Amino acid sequence: MTGRDGGADLAPIGNSPVVILVRPQLADNIGAVARAMGNGGLFHLRLVAPRDGWPQEKAWRNASGADRILDNLTIHDTVAEAVADLHRVVATCPRPRHIVKPLLTARGAAAELRVICARDLRAGILFGPERAGLDNDDMACADTLVRYPLNPGFMSLNLSQAVMVMAYEWWTADDVTLPRRLMTNETAVATKGELDNFLGHLVAELDACGFLRNKPKRPGMVRNIRHLFERGEVTVQELRTLHGIVTELALGRRQRGRTEKDGDAAAD
Amino acid sequence: MTGRDGGADLAPIGNSPVVILVRPQLADNIGAVARAMGNGGLFHLRLVAPRDGWPQEKAWRNASGADRILDNLTIHDTVAEAVADLHRVVATCPRPRHIVKPLLTARGAAAELRVICARDLRAGILFGPERAGLDNDDMACADTLVRYPLNPGFMSLNLSQAVMVMAYEWWTADDVTLPRRLMTNETAVATKGELDNFLGHLVAELDACGFLRNKPKRPGMVRNIRHLFERGEVTVQELRTLHGIVTELALGRRQRGRTEKDGDAAAD
Repeated sequence: MTGRDGGADLAPIGNSPVVILVRPQLADNIGAVARAMGNGGLFHLRLVAPRDGWPQEKAWRNASGADRILDNLTIHDTVAEAVADLHRVVATCPRPRHIVKPLLTARGAAAELRVICARDLRAGILFGPERAGLDNDDMACADTLVRYPLNPGFMSLNLSQAVMVMAYEWWTADDVTLPRRLMTNETAVATKGELDNFLGHLVAELDACGFLRNKPKRPGMVRNIRHLFERGEVTVQELRTLHGIVTELALGRRQRGRTEKDGDAAAD
Repeated sequence: MTGRDGGADLAPIGNSPVVILVRPQLADNIGAVARAMGNGGLFHLRLVAPRDGWPQEKAWRNASGADRILDNLTIHDTVAEAVADLHRVVATCPRPRHIVKPLLTARGAAAELRVICARDLRAGILFGPERAGLDNDDMACADTLVRYPLNPGFMSLNLSQAVMVMAYEWWTADDVTLPRRLMTNETAVATKGELDNFLGHLVAELDACGFLRNKPKRPGMVRNIRHLFERGEVTVQELRTLHGIVTELALGRRQRGRTEKDGDAAAD
């Protein structure tokens, strides 16, 4: 605790895993880790033997408001001490090792951690120091390893990025957002009937102005216009705008006293 | 191009989306973005009007070897110019806006981008400046919005973290790693028969030393021991070790001339 009083009003969300940074080197990274944890709804942070001691003002400066997470972290001398009260511990492990342990992807780990936490067990996630990663003794304190699927040609992952991926997967594992929606704000997606009503209006004006006067081609042209408007979800508001555009274009044409012949170019 | 000649041997992997940073402010972040792109197998980077000009030595220092990505990036005056040769553009959009556009999660976007790129279309992903994010004119250049599911109580995401999540999802969308494996290295998971063979050895020695001499309780005790060893996947190597442990413990006991009575405490 440092007594600082700034930052966002972060608090634990349910029973969530503890993030344990083992021998972290850079205070900047510790701050960035706190920020990433906040993004993904994690709160509990433990540091094992931070290289430059603790607290470090730079961490708070780099946490972008995740102060509460830093205010509440605890310091430990050894990994064994940091995990002593936990029931399950997963260790991030970027490089293959000669260890016999279950190996999960980040997504697989997030799903398991959700189950573990839902059972009211306490879980932790170990992250190694910036350069070397966790050593074999550190990993012996974990029951499970986690390796992210990433470009094998460039696996050098920043510490806070590693925490970000895990925090993101933790949040996403419990998220029900549809993978695709249409942002419609104060309007709504139009029904097929509302779309058909607009297409009727458009075709009537295209008949009136002569755009569709080629009788053999007319059914195909009408169908192609329909295909364009059917392709995406159109909103009620957009249909109102389209009705207005058609009305105004037709009116302008009529007011300028144009004849059907002027429609020729557009009909090609 | 800066003529630098360091870093990892990164190159484009297939047809992958272009990352477009709109008015980025900090060279450190641009370097961190390049590193995150390398992690996720992205290569093409474009900068629109970087605040402090370009090139910036700090970006290369912060890229941790993703130099090739910085060496090959291009600079553009406007978003419209940066996306002119692309067929599809998605824009990251952390905050709700009054825009009618399809809205995807990061995972949904990655899946769609994989399909777009497999069709040999050129795709791009817009990321806004550090503080303000993309403005409404920027977003009008995109066909689709992307919003990550993250803690709504703390959405302030570092620029390179935002790119990391998208790059990670891009890589993961084409990844077939099983969510759970057992790292076994030079050994293999034992079959049920091999496990049964060990349990037979163990039970025989437990009979011999008297641990199982309570006849009514014996079947349940044997079953409980089996449950423990059946719970996780045991390797062939671990079974060899367990056989050795049982043999040595039994031998030591016999050599010390102990009687069956010494088994009492452990049998409770």
